[in-house]
This record gives sequence, structure tokens and C-alpha cells, in this order.
Amino acid sequence: MINDKLPKIWYGGDYNPEQWDSEVWSEDERMFKLAGIDVATINVFSWALIQPDEVTYDFSALDETMDRLYKSGVYVCLATSTGAHPAWMAKKYPDVTRVDVQGRKRTFGGRHNSCPNSPTYLKYSAKLAGKLAERYKDHPGLLIWHVSNEYGGYCYCDNCAKAFRVWLKQRYGTLDNLNRAWNTRFWGHTFYDWDEVVVPNELSEEWNGNRTNFQGISIDYRRFQSYSLLEAYKLEYEELKKHTPDIPVTTNLMGFYPELDYFEWAKYMDVVSWDNYPSLDTPVSRTAMAHDLMRGLKSGQPFMLMEQTPSQQNWQAYNSLKRPGVMRLWSYQAVARGADTVMFFQLRRSIGACEKYHGAVIEHVGHEHTRVFRECAELGRELVGLSDKLLDARTEAKVAIVYDWENRWATDLSSGPSVALNYENEAHKYYDALFKLHIEIDMISVEEDLSKYDIVIAPVMYMVKPGFAQKVEQFVSAGGTFVTTFFSGIVNENDLVTVGGYPGELRSVLGIWAEEIDALFPDQKNQMVMKAPWGKLQGQFECGLLCDLIHSEGAEVLAEYGSDFYKGMPVLTVNKFGKGHAYYVASSPEASFLEGFLSNLCEEQGVKPLMAAPEGVEVTRRVKNGMSYLFLLNHNADPATVEINSEKTDILTGKIVSGSLTVPGRGVSILEEAF
Amino acid sequence: MINDKLPKIWYGGDYNPEQWDSEVWSEDERMFKLAGIDVATINVFSWALIQPDEVTYDFSALDETMDRLYKSGVYVCLATSTGAHPAWMAKKYPDVTRVDVQGRKRTFGGRHNSCPNSPTYLKYSAKLAGKLAERYKDHPGLLIWHVSNEYGGYCYCDNCAKAFRVWLKQRYGTLDNLNRAWNTRFWGHTFYDWDEVVVPNELSEEWNGNRTNFQGISIDYRRFQSYSLLEAYKLEYEELKKHTPDIPVTTNLMGFYPELDYFEWAKYMDVVSWDNYPSLDTPVSRTAMAHDLMRGLKSGQPFMLMEQTPSQQNWQAYNSLKRPGVMRLWSYQAVARGADTVMFFQLRRSIGACEKYHGAVIEHVGHEHTRVFRECAELGRELVGLSDKLLDARTEAKVAIVYDWENRWATDLSSGPSVALNYENEAHKYYDALFKLHIEIDMISVEEDLSKYDIVIAPVMYMVKPGFAQKVEQFVSAGGTFVTTFFSGIVNENDLVTVGGYPGELRSVLGIWAEEIDALFPDQKNQMVMKAPWGKLQGQFECGLLCDLIHSEGAEVLAEYGSDFYKGMPVLTVNKFGKGHAYYVASSPEASFLEGFLSNLCEEQGVKPLMAAPEGVEVTRRVKNGMSYLFLLNHNADPATVEINSEKTDILTGKIVSGSLTVPGRGVSILEEAF
Amino acid sequence: MINDKLPKIWYGGDYNPEQWDSEVWSEDERMFKLAGIDVATINVFSWALIQPDEVTYDFSALDETMDRLYKSGVYVCLATSTGAHPAWMAKKYPDVTRVDVQGRKRTFGGRHNSCPNSPTYLKYSAKLAGKLAERYKDHPGLLIWHVSNEYGGYCYCDNCAKAFRVWLKQRYGTLDNLNRAWNTRFWGHTFYDWDEVVVPNELSEEWNGNRTNFQGISIDYRRFQSYSLLEAYKLEYEELKKHTPDIPVTTNLMGFYPELDYFEWAKYMDVVSWDNYPSLDTPVSRTAMAHDLMRGLKSGQPFMLMEQTPSQQNWQAYNSLKRPGVMRLWSYQAVARGADTVMFFQLRRSIGACEKYHGAVIEHVGHEHTRVFRECAELGRELVGLSDKLLDARTEAKVAIVYDWENRWATDLSSGPSVALNYENEAHKYYDALFKLHIEIDMISVEEDLSKYDIVIAPVMYMVKPGFAQKVEQFVSAGGTFVTTFFSGIVNENDLVTVGGYPGELRSVLGIWAEEIDALFPDQKNQMVMKAPWGKLQGQFECGLLCDLIHSEGAEVLAEYGSDFYKGMPVLTVNKFGKGHAYYVASSPEASFLEGFLSNLCEEQGVKPLMAAPEGVEVTRRVKNGMSYLFLLNHNADPATVEINSEKTDILTGKIVSGSLTVPGRGVSILEEAF
Repeated sequence: MINDKLPKIWYGGDYNPEQWDSEVWSEDERMFKLAGIDVATINVFSWALIQPDEVTYDFSALDETMDRLYKSGVYVCLATSTGAHPAWMAKKYPDVTRVDVQGRKRTFGGRHNSCPNSPTYLKYSAKLAGKLAERYKDHPGLLIWHVSNEYGGYCYCDNCAKAFRVWLKQRYGTLDNLNRAWNTRFWGHTFYDWDEVVVPNELSEEWNGNRTNFQGISIDYRRFQSYSLLEAYKLEYEELKKHTPDIPVTTNLMGFYPELDYFEWAKYMDVVSWDNYPSLDTPVSRTAMAHDLMRGLKSGQPFMLMEQTPSQQNWQAYNSLKRPGVMRLWSYQAVARGADTVMFFQLRRSIGACEKYHGAVIEHVGHEHTRVFRECAELGRELVGLSDKLLDARTEAKVAIVYDWENRWATDLSSGPSVALNYENEAHKYYDALFKLHIEIDMISVEEDLSKYDIVIAPVMYMVKPGFAQKVEQFVSAGGTFVTTFFSGIVNENDLVTVGGYPGELRSVLGIWAEEIDALFPDQKNQMVMKAPWGKLQGQFECGLLCDLIHSEGAEVLAEYGSDFYKGMPVLTVNKFGKGHAYYVASSPEASFLEGFLSNLCEEQGVKPLMAAPEGVEVTRRVKNGMSYLFLLNHNADPATVEINSEKTDILTGKIVSGSLTVPGRGVSILEEAF
Repeated sequence: MINDKLPKIWYGGDYNPEQWDSEVWSEDERMFKLAGIDVATINVFSWALIQPDEVTYDFSALDETMDRLYKSGVYVCLATSTGAHPAWMAKKYPDVTRVDVQGRKRTFGGRHNSCPNSPTYLKYSAKLAGKLAERYKDHPGLLIWHVSNEYGGYCYCDNCAKAFRVWLKQRYGTLDNLNRAWNTRFWGHTFYDWDEVVVPNELSEEWNGNRTNFQGISIDYRRFQSYSLLEAYKLEYEELKKHTPDIPVTTNLMGFYPELDYFEWAKYMDVVSWDNYPSLDTPVSRTAMAHDLMRGLKSGQPFMLMEQTPSQQNWQAYNSLKRPGVMRLWSYQAVARGADTVMFFQLRRSIGACEKYHGAVIEHVGHEHTRVFRECAELGRELVGLSDKLLDARTEAKVAIVYDWENRWATDLSSGPSVALNYENEAHKYYDALFKLHIEIDMISVEEDLSKYDIVIAPVMYMVKPGFAQKVEQFVSAGGTFVTTFFSGIVNENDLVTVGGYPGELRSVLGIWAEEIDALFPDQKNQMVMKAPWGKLQGQFECGLLCDLIHSEGAEVLAEYGSDFYKGMPVLTVNKFGKGHAYYVASSPEASFLEGFLSNLCEEQGVKPLMAAPEGVEVTRRVKNGMSYLFLLNHNADPATVEINSEKTDILTGKIVSGSLTVPGRGVSILEEAF
Repeated sequence: MINDKLPKIWYGGDYNPEQWDSEVWSEDERMFKLAGIDVATINVFSWALIQPDEVTYDFSALDETMDRLYKSGVYVCLATSTGAHPAWMAKKYPDVTRVDVQGRKRTFGGRHNSCPNSPTYLKYSAKLAGKLAERYKDHPGLLIWHVSNEYGGYCYCDNCAKAFRVWLKQRYGTLDNLNRAWNTRFWGHTFYDWDEVVVPNELSEEWNGNRTNFQGISIDYRRFQSYSLLEAYKLEYEELKKHTPDIPVTTNLMGFYPELDYFEWAKYMDVVSWDNYPSLDTPVSRTAMAHDLMRGLKSGQPFMLMEQTPSQQNWQAYNSLKRPGVMRLWSYQAVARGADTVMFFQLRRSIGACEKYHGAVIEHVGHEHTRVFRECAELGRELVGLSDKLLDARTEAKVAIVYDWENRWATDLSSGPSVALNYENEAHKYYDALFKLHIEIDMISVEEDLSKYDIVIAPVMYMVKPGFAQKVEQFVSAGGTFVTTFFSGIVNENDLVTVGGYPGELRSVLGIWAEEIDALFPDQKNQMVMKAPWGKLQGQFECGLLCDLIHSEGAEVLAEYGSDFYKGMPVLTVNKFGKGHAYYVASSPEASFLEGFLSNLCEEQGVKPLMAAPEGVEVTRRVKNGMSYLFLLNHNADPATVEINSEKTDILTGKIVSGSLTVPGRGVSILEEAF
């Protein structure tokens, strides 16, 4: 349990009373009660209010808010306010603002605007965290700490350049090692002095956001900036822990956000929390995958849904309303996949600046007689009813998909073979097929223990870091099923190619050699022709994007290319390795192939779908104390019927169900039974 | 009359004899006579010639041109040359060049390149204007002053930052007021010292041209830059007026140009003038709307068509020739809508630099035997024939469309609900429907007296400034018909939302409450289903873009949404308020709806079309001294026939017409009768 | 012969042993032998290795490589390494890095990164070249010098600004001349001091890469930067020649690369070399045209194919593999069009940084058992077989297409009439038609002697430089056929319009006057209607882009426009002038017109196709010592059959062929016979 002061699914969200006059506050309290809101995230952007100048700290307003909320039954997720520095600080200490990727020194503005290597920022952010912890350590309303906000963005200033060199010295020890790791003899880049190293931005090696002359330098800079921001976070974390060792600490993450290596970050977070902002046209399985990734950051530990919008966003191009029922549906989707909180941005809608069209529990109209408020209040009541039943429940997936931020950086930055390659999309293709099969999935890091899984899928495992190939071999040897794809096993952690034949370190377990990699134009396609019917797979399937031209070195060929000069070469292989099997999918297949393929693998490994369900019905499960909770989430607008093969209790209605169960359009059932 | 020295429709345009050797000048004079040209705009870009260094002023060439032109019967529209500073000035006083929105200090180049807060620019531009006025105040050829040229562009330099802070102090008085107006508690932006305020550009709050973190700051910066440029204009204006109080002063505007609030500017212009550059694919009603806006800047006072091209442009992507007759047709379109001049850029085509492919009366071939010259000369003769008949004639519209630059800035800068919202487009939809109905229209500011109109339409009246709602209420109470649309009444002049329910201050007069605003994807549509046939409206119509989810609070529901979860909610309402009616159109309809809708409203208010006419025939009217002049402009390539219900005189042919009148393809008739 | 040390078609490519450990080297040697590789381009990016600091030069590694290669039978194309400066130099002497077009000072990174007016760069690059020449002047393996690498990019720093002013003084003598040439009275740009001139970049006159306010300034800056880089090249050239007057010197060019005027460059190159990187979707005639242009740079002298990829590129969006046979086919295409070398980038594939997915003879797998290596080795063997037979053979074209870099700059930079105008595309349209007709073509400069041709085509001859029109008149008078198109004869070398009627200086020879130029929208079309059937032309053809509205002034009208208001005006004319004919094509026609048109012209002039051949079969010819070598290049995947009308020897197979000859899909025949 995140904090047993509030032993239920927390319900609430961001709250900014400082933007309102005090007469509004009592109205807030009244409506919070109506909506069953029991947690408020406060103090997210109040640095300038709390610290109006370098020496003054004024907590009086925050004191009042803390007390007021607590008295009205609302606990606090207390932010440290360091997500945006004060204007006076930017003016007095310009080191606090960033230099952007174009090399431009920023003045003052925006948020997430502090250089993570600014001495000023590090000093005063830590100091503020410490003061907050000291002041509120005994406040009964304090539930959890929320450090800064949505960390992100890179800085390219001189302080960062200096810190980068220090980081490089620690990583590489000598310039010789660095020159080798970056292959600097290419294009005459040999460095003879650490100070010759400059930051890789548009003034040196990069352009167009993800193009670079030196992948090694650019990947290291991403590592370094992710590290720098994490170090800034950790300074605050330590200040908080000094005073409140038992209060959990988090910061809100952003799903697949590319710039930070969240697996590294999660090591220093007591609980993962994240902000979920799908659009009307985001596939529901993409959101599900993000939840599973967030759960995977700490190996299955429940997480917080820190932010979602009650209805509308403002940052999207076309900010659709969430259709009736969708907010509840997506809230339960989060819970189904590991969330122990349901929280919004925000509780009361702001009236000025860029997020004023971001929806809120309390809309601009200010009263409770809105569709949005009614839906929020209904959900609030329901969550009270669920009490602590689901808290800390776990997911028991036997199938895992490997996701790796450094691998993403490496594939994003690669010059060739195809600009169309998108690591996240390829992972999602596999995820989506499993999702449709109603198979439970874990999203895992390359550091995860594989032995708990029956099937491990590592799409586009381009960068193979030390020890990973051995781990895969042990996993397969022991009977596991491993799947990887085209453009895998190519480089090591420094983005240096493993010579001797692709897929490099994975070649042995896969039993193949990839001689060449063809890149297809968007309108070019090839085919995967099954050599023989295999379970749900027969005939041929379309594929494209990249086509590895592979040779079997012991692997059995299951399908061959159907056209072009490599017609007849293997496109799908399986290698028996020890007690297990390693599959290689040499191109990017159409969805119907993946559904059949993964269905076959699950059948082989005895991994069963949670249940049969119509299209658009998401099925997933959490387990706890010997009970299982099966979530049926009907994403269709129309009702859907499923067959329940044994009596279960719907904990939302309290009814016992069996046989045909009709879930309303956008409806949810949570079915409890012994596990 | 702009200046009674030349009591006819002025005919001429920009003339740059300084780019040519003197032998060309006499050829110019000969051809000007052939073409009936009687006004030349000169000295537009001659600052560097007149003032070759800081202390020297040399007017000898200008003296000669003034005298020469006057002797050959050509009056002068005398520009002040301050549209581009000299190179020596940029080198000696770098404060004269701008810093761009990306924060880059410019060197020397282009035009409209001076910082409006540069002490150097302000000093020397005013000085030059004063010297010109002093020198030519008694010149008989001087007809009008033309200050600078096409003012535009913003600067972000330190001088602007300082001046911005002064402007803010004047606007807000205290930092408390400023912090409140900008809602700076959002994202921790509270300012404690005026000097902490920085200019909103890509180094602080803005990106992508029209995206900003703080709408309040960015709108104020637009106000401030529009003001700064206007102040620079006013300095010159005052210098000119010191010496020539009776010579009118103008500067050439650019229609819907977004960066300057022309309603503010027009207050300081003796006569409005503007440059009209439609493309082959610009709807003729869009050009008509621009003319009406220019006429509306000074509440109906006639304006100058300062520039148009005789045939070809050079700045468009595909610079089509104006088809035969089109130059004449579009010239009369300007006159029909209030222009008392027909002027070109330019009289002789330049041979070097970026505008050498911009058409001219005298083309590169240099003689009069060109299609373009012949058309110009024919029009010249015709305008001589019209004499002063149309000068100072007025338009008597009973329907007005409200247009507001600050509202445009606010909608452009809004983050959400839809990137597809385009204020000008929405206004044009209503304009176009009225245009096709042959209804006279005024384009008016929010400051205009509404009582002279029967129908006032304010599309997307997002920002409601102080007093406007009251004015609308009075107008409707007194029997007027008011129309507004989705996304109206949302914010006040500081872009702060009016809480308590959209459409805010307009809610009472409209009798509705807009609970939510759905943004549709470009391929998403909804329908407006008429509850009952109403005049020309029955059945259903398509709508899209944004859909307000409204509730009637007394208004009658005329149409409902046809699909989605808000099917059956009102999409078209009318509220009886006092003696009048207020309509709300909750989404963006297809054209056929608007034609029927506006036709109904006109019928209800007794506003009659000027006449029936086939598609593509524009009909509009000016009145003067008890006579009316009906313009029939046939934009079709083929002849069109209209029915004339009473005898009228075509003042272009002198013939009396009645019954069936055939207007040739791209032809024009101007029919005179008693009014 | 480039260097008679190696009297055969050189075969090899870029080689970077410094990126590998020494154990790899012997493997390299073994595989080079297998592949018949006899030349290696080395030392391309080794500046930082050779000169680790300002005073130290260390040639030991290079010594070893030179010796090792020579011992194993591989000659050396020795690069000077100045294509990328060392990091220490950028740090110590920041003048060495560039300022980009946005005005941003670069730090360190990339390649082709040195300012050509940097005193540091000029000093140390020349010094390095001199040291290399001195050291290796007697090395038996030294075959040719390769200065720097793929020169390109512009700099906008203060040193360039100063040098630009010096260059301008030399070009114009006086500021009066400069002001006139740039037409600075437009937009008040008159310069009174040379120091007022600034470089034309985004801080002054330019934007969006090819938009400018002053074409004259921007064209001059392109001339100046091309000149500056050439001067830097020449410094090295002279240093090399001091020590090795008999070793040829080259630098690798890039086909139609826009930034450098290669005709100027070729004057200072002993032999032209270039890098050929077509994509899968590049028309083969486009590649052919590039080869012909490279051959034309030195008036037909054979050139070096310095770089091509054995299979895959990495810089393209979708890096397709070269299909089997294509590498050989495209190698012979180069040879067929004048190449005396076949060289790759690169011999061994690098493992790190941005070009690691660029193909190589030795792939990452490292052994010879790859498709790519096998194809390379087969070609290597074949080239050994060809010995010196084709070396120095020439092409005997009677048809020439004029190509001019300055004209390209002028059309690219033109503001109006159409953004869709692309000089290279228009030239390619004519080239492609001749290519399909199997007519030999020379790509020539405006300085070329025209008298050797029967037909000279100058598409979009927009800028007519001094003497060119006279040359055309002499050529036509003497019986030649001259063809030019719309938008020709417009400006002089300063981009100043020639007044008095388009096409200016070409008007007399063409016998027409172009009164206006219409620009068509992309979906707009007109028609060319033949007045009478003429050879292969009859009926009508589509045209678009630009339409000149022309009048005959003596020329015969062959076709008229088919629609729009200029229907019936001439669109194709021929003027008899002396003994010859001058054609004007007033719009941009569809391909079928050009095939018929050029076929007619060839027939009239007695220029015969090399032979009849099916679509997709390229036919071209080189001649030497009274023998002709007919190349049949089958670009189709399927075999193609041609009729051989007299016995010839296929020098690749040694067989005598006549009658029906089937060339395999992607196959090549080289047929020898007496000429």
C-alpha cells in the first residue's frame, strides 16, 4: 500500500487554490465531498510564491491549504514546486535557465525550464525540498511527496558541457576508451583533451531533432541528461527522506516519454506515478501498453495514475471530449493494469494561460451540474465502495515484452537503414496482438529476471547490452520461448556494431545469420509465405519496413519471403536451443500474422488467454491474497456479451455472475473469484 | 474628398524613377499620359539616397521628380521613405535593426526592418518626415502623404523589452494587477519586479509562431508592438502636420494583416489606404470582405486602393496572370466597396532584386504595346469619364459583421480546443453567404455604434471586451438581430475566462448555456437537424470544427445535433430579448445552411437583397447626394443576364438600361438612379 | 590515362585502416586480392591523427599503410585529410569553424566544417598538403592526390564577410558599380562604404534556404563561397604540385551538387572525380545525365567514379539494397559515360558513427561469403580482363545540353513566377527524351565551343552571360539547331533584366517576343496543338508549369496553345537564322512531346540513334583509336533483345555477336567494332 493513511484507491488530483480567491475554497471543499475526492496534489508550481526572493520563505498560504484540506477530509500529495523556477531567479542567476538544442540561451518562461547542472537550481531546489519536509513532516494530511513535475527536456549550456566531461571521465576513464567507444577516427574526431569534447547539438553534431553524426556521442548525451535530471531529483529525494523517511516519494512520469530512461529513474522512486493523456484516436492497447510499462518500471509494483483529464485535453490538435463513460472506463483500465490511484489534472479548471482549456472536475461554470462532474462523482462513490480490495494486487503475466530506452535512442538516432523504423511502434505491434488475444503481458527492462516468464519478446533488440545475450540463452536453455525481430543484435551499448555477422551476440541462440537488411519504401511490400500450416498460421502474410536477408545456421525455417530477389529466403525461423525455442521474425508483419504467431507460441507454452471476448473488450487481471480480479473493459459504444465459465462476483455491483454476461457499451465489470 | 486638387478617382501608383536613368523619365511621362495616370506614389524607399550619411540631406533628385511630374500632369502621393533604413545607419547605430522572434539580432537587409523602439530610428524618421514636409509643403503637386510602407513585423530587442515594461506599467499600474491579468500563479510565474518581465519569444514563452505558454503575455506583446509601430507612425504624422495641416496623411495597410490592430491605426489616419493582392484562387468574396473591412476602419469613410498589380504578382507560389478584363473588374470591385482611388504597384517594372517579376503598367519591354498597358490605358480613360461622380459616395448597409484584431490574436494563440479554428475563415463564411445573397455588409469594430444596423453578426466572439455585451443587449432590446457562434463569450480582454458558464457575458442575451465544447477531427462531421422548416431552412445540414454542447435557458431551439452523444442537444437557438432576437450557431455549418439562415434573418428584418443575380455576379452599391450607384460585377468568364426592374443609367456607357441587362464576362455595369 | 602506373580501370575505394586493429589489415589484403582491388583511397579523415597538436606531425601510421598496401599490390589515392579539422584546432582557433546561414557560430563537429576564409584553416591545410607531398612524392604506390573531401557548405562568419568585400571590390571596382549591379536603389539599399555590405543570410536578406530579397547579392555570395572553397583547394593543389608535379590531383565532386560551380572547379583539377549515389527510385537517365555532366566539366575528358556504394546507402530515407547485378550494371554505366575508374565507398564497413550502415565491399560480417563481396569480386575480375582497352576513350556526341550553375542559382533564387520551377528537372526532361532515343549527349557549360555540335539545347536559359548570345547566333548561322525554352534570355550575369522584350539577347536568333509569362498551378494544364503534323509530332500534347505568351517576330509557329485566354498564341516556334534553326518551347511539355520533338530535330540534322533498343535498355558509346565501344545496359529485370546490324565483339565475353542479341536482365554488353 502506498500509504496506509488512506487505505483505498486514492481519488483526486492537481489542485491550485493559489489561483483563486478564498471564497472559492469552501465551494471547492463542498464539491470535493460531493465527488468523493480524498487526495489533492498541491504546491506543484508555487516556488515563486513560497520564495519571493533569495532569502525569504513564506509558507503561510501552504499551511492554510494543508490544514483546510485535511479538515475537510482531503489528504495531500505534496509537490516540491521545483518544476518551474521563479522569475527573480532567472534574472539574478541566469545559469538557472537552459541553452536549447539550437544553442540558444533561454531567458525566462515556460516550465521544466531549469538546467539540471545549474549550481543555483541545485542549491535552491534542494533547499526548498528540505524546508518543505521539515515543516510538514508531522502534518497528518501529508500522504506522499511529489518531486518537481514531469521532468524532461535537455540543456546544452556550459555547465552541462563541464558536467558532461566529468561524467565521461567516470564512464570511460581514459580518452583512449572514449575515442574507441565513439569511433572518433571516423571523420577525424580524435580527442586529445577532455575539454575538446563539446555538447552534441545543432552547433556541433546534431540536426532535425534525431539526426546525428555520432550516435555514440548523442546516445551518451541522452544518458547524461537523463542522469543529470535524475541527480537533481535525487537531491530533493534525499532532503525529503532526511525528515520524512516513511513518507513515499514519487515524481510523475509520462509513459513512453523518450528523453528519460525511466527504468533508471524508477530505482530511486518509492512508487511510480504517471500522467496518462490518450487522444480519441489512440488505440486502447497503446494506453494499456503504457500502463504495463509503468507497472514494469518497478517489476510489477502497483503505480499511481497521477494525472488524466476528466474529459478534454488542450495540447492535442483536436481536443475531443471524452465520450460518456469513457473517463470511468479508462480509469478502470489504469486500475486493471496496476494503478492504485485515480487522479486528475485538475480539480478546478484554471482561467488563464495555456491550460485553461484542459478539462477539470470542476469546470469553468463552477457548479456540480455538469456531465463531467456527475461522471466524476459517480466514479468517486464507486471507488469508496471498492475500499482496499484491489490495493497492492499484482499481475501474473507469463509473457513479457522487453522495452529499453537506450535501444530506443539508438534506433531513433540511427542513420539508415530506414527513417520509418519506430521502435515503440514495433513493440506495440506485438503488444497489440497479445492484447487482442487477452493474454497478460509484462513490459520489462533488459535487466529484468526472465526466468519468471514462459515467453519473452524483444522486438527490434538492436542494442544488446552486456550480459543480455547470456541471459536470453539461459532463459531459452531452460525451456523459455524467445522472440526477436529484424535489426536485432546489431550493436553493443556504445552503438558499435558487433562484427562477425548479425544478429551478433544473439546469433547463437537464434541459429541464423542475417547477411543483409533491405529497407522498403512505404508502398513496397513483401510476403511471409508459410512453408506449412502451423496452428493458426497458413498461407501468406504481408510484411514490410525492413527485410533481413537471413540464412539458417541450424534454425528451422517456418516461412520464406514471397517476392523480390530474396524470395525463398527465410523470413520466420525457430531455433531449438536447450529446452526452449528462439524465434526470429525477419521483417515487420501485418497484424493478422502476429495474432496467429503469438497465439501459436502461447499455445505451445501453455499460456492461456484470460477468456474469450468480443473485439473491443479488454480483459486483464490482478490477483491478491488468493483472489483474482478479472477486469472486463468494453471499449465499444455498444454492449458486448461474454461467457463466464464459473461463478464470479462483480465487485462493482455485488452481483454474482455466470453464463452470459453483458457488459454495457463503455462499461466495466470486475469479477472476483478464488485464484 | 481626399484632396480636391484632383477631383476624380485617382489613377496611378508606385513610381521609382531613381532606379532609372533620366532618358527613361520622358518615356514614362509619355506613357503616363497615354494611360491617363494622374498620381504617382514616389519616394517610398529613398531614405539612403536622400540621407547618404548622418548629417547630409540631399533633396535635389526628389525636387526634380516632383517638378517633372507636376509639369506633366501627375500629382504626387509623397512617401516619407522610412520603410527601410539606410545601410550606414544599421552599421553606425545597430539599435536600428530588429531582434527577431527567435532572439536573433539582425544585421542589415530587407525592408520594414527598423525597431520601433530604436532611439535612432525614431529620431531620424521623424526628422526626415519633418524635412520633407517643410520642403514640399507648398508644392502644387503634393496630394497626400504616405508614411513609411506596409508597417509590420515585431521586434524583440532590449529597447523593446524596456518599452514593453513601461507600457505594462501604464496598462496595469501595479505588478499585482499584471500578475492577476496574466494569471501568473499558473506555472509559478509571479513577477516581483518589472524588470523580471521578458519579451515573449522563442527564448521564453512562444514557439511555432502562434503557440505560447501565456496567452495574456503574448496578446499584450502584440498590442504593444502594434502600439509601438503606431507611435513611430504618429511621430511622422505630427511632423507632417506641423507643416502641412491640410494635406491628408495615410499609410498603406494590408487588409487582414494579422500583426497590427488596424482599427487602432485608423484613428490616426486621415484616410485609410490599402494594398490588395488576391491570387487567382482567392474567392472574390474574400477580397470584397477585405475592402469592406478597410472601409469599416473609419466607419464607412471611402478609402484608397493604394496598390494592386496590373497583372502578375511575384510573392505568390504560382503567380498567375490576371486574365483579360480582371484588372478592370477588380479595380471596380474596390471602387464599388468604397475606394476613391485605383493605384498600382507599380508604374514601371524594376529590373533587379526580388520584385522584378511583380507586374507593372510599363512592363520590362518598355513600350505601350502590351495587353497589360492597353488594359490600364482603357481603364484610365474610363476613370476620367467618371469624373467626381462617385467620390465620397457611401455604403448603406443594414447588416454588419464584427471583426476584432485582439479577438483574432486570442483565438490564434489559444491552446485548444482545435488547431483548425481560424477566426478569419469563420467570419468569411458568414460574409460569403451574405455576399451571395447580394446583401450589403459593413465590417465593423467592437467599438462601432450598432444602432444603425438591423442585423449584427459576431462570429467566434471569443473575447468580449468591456461594454460590448451591454451594447449587444441594448441593440437586441431595441429590436436588432444579433448572431454569434460557438466559442464565444469565453474570455475577457485579458484572455481570462469568464466563469459561471459560457458564453459568459453574452449568456443572458442568448438565453443559453454552453456546457462543453467538442473539437472534431477534420474528417469528423455532425449535423444540424431543423426541428421544423423555417423559411429557406429545412431538413439537415452538415457542421463540424467545434460543437458547443448547449442548453437552452429560455432560447427557442431551432435545430439539434444529428449524431454523437450530444444528438438532440441544441445547435441553433434564438432568444427573444426585448424587441429583438439573439441567435446562437453552436457549430461551424456548411455554406448552404448559412445562406438559408441569413436569408431568413434578412427577411425577418426586412433587409432586402440589392437585386437578384446569377452566381458569380457581385452586386453592391454606393450612394451619394440622393443618387444610388449599383455595381454589377460579373466575375464569370461568360456573360450574365440580370433583370433591371426600373430604368437606370449605366454611367460607364451613358446608356439607359431596364429589363434584361447582359453584363459581359468579367464585365462591369454601374447603374445610377435616384435613391 | 590518369596515371600510367596502373593501366586499367582502377578498382577499389575508400579505406580506413586506422579504424581497425592491425590484425584486420592482413585480412583486408587477402580479401582485396580476392576482389581484384588495386586502388585504395586513404587518409581522407586523418588530420587529427597525423597532427595531434599544433606542432607535431606523425606520419608513422600512414607510412605503414602506404607500404603495406603497395606490397600487397594496391595503389593509393592519397587524400590530404583536410575535409575535417581536428578538435584541438576548433578549440584553440575558433576561426576555423563556420557560422551557418542562420548566423550561428558552430563549435566542433561534423565534416566539411572549416571556414574557407579562416587563416588557421588555410595555413594548416596547405601545410599538411605540403608535408604529405614532400613525404610521399617518391612513394611507388602513390597514384593520385585526393584533396579534402566533397567540398561544400557555406560560411557566414566575419572573416568571410571581410573576404567577401575584397572579392566584391575586385569584381565591381567601385561601389557605384556594385550598387548598380545589385539594383540597391530598390528598397533603399544604397551602400556608401564597403563595410556596410553584410553577408546575405537569415540575419539579413535570406530565408528558407533559397529565398532572398536581393538575388544579385545572394548569387554573388554563392559565387564568392564557391570561389573561396576553390581557393582553399588551390592552396593545397599548389603545395602538392610543388613536390609532385606529375601526380594528378583531384577532389571528389557530387554531380549536380548545387553549392559549387563545378565548371570553375574543373579548371583546377587534373582529372574530375565524383561520388555517385542514386536511390532505388532515381531514374537511370538522371544518373546518366550526372555522368555526362561530370564528363563535360573538362570537355569530354574521362573522369573517375570515386565513390559508389557496393549495395546500400545510409543517408537516404529508405536505403534499399542494390538488387543483384545492379552494382555491376551501374558501374558499367559510369564507364560507358566516361569513367576510367570504378571505386567504392568503402572497402571495409565501419562499426561506429553515422555511416556504419553504408555498404562496403567487406561487410560487418568480415568474410568474403556474402552476395555483395561476390558481386564485387566478379566485377574485379572482369575489369582486369578489360585491361586498358577503354581507358581514355571518348564520347562523340553531336547533341549538347547546356548546364550552368549560376543560372541554377538565379532560377532557384528567383521570386516568381513559380516556386515549382526546377532548373535541373527541366534540363532532365530534355536529357531523358534523348536518352530514350539512344542519342549521345554532352552536358556542356556556357563557355563550351558549340561548333562541334549539330544540336544545342539550353533549357530555361534564364541568365544569359556576356558573349553567350553571340555564340548561339554564330552557331545557328553556321547551320546549327538551337533549342531553348520559356523563361530564357531574361537576365544578365548580375540577374538584372534585359529590357526591351524577352527573351532579351536571344530574341533575335529566336525571332519571337515573349510578352508575358503565366505561372500555372500544379493541377493546371494547357495544350500544345500542332498546326500541322511534323515528323513524329501530331495532334496535341499537354504542357504546364510556365507558359510564355509569345509573338512571332519572324519565327514560324509550329504549335499553339490549346486553351485559356492565350489559346491560339504560339507555344512552339522555329526561326530560320542563317543556315540553321532556333526553336523556342514556350512551356514545359509532357515527355511524349519531347521525344517526338527531339527525334525530329535529330532527323533534320542527321543525328542518328546509336541503335534501336527496347525500353529500359540504355545505349551509349565510347571511341578510341579508331574503335568504337557500344555499351548496352539493360536496366530491366528481364532479358532484352536487340538487333545487331553488323558483327561486333563483346569484349566482356570475347564472343562475336550479330543479329539478335539478348542482354540478360541487369546485364551489360560492350560491343567493339571499327569506328
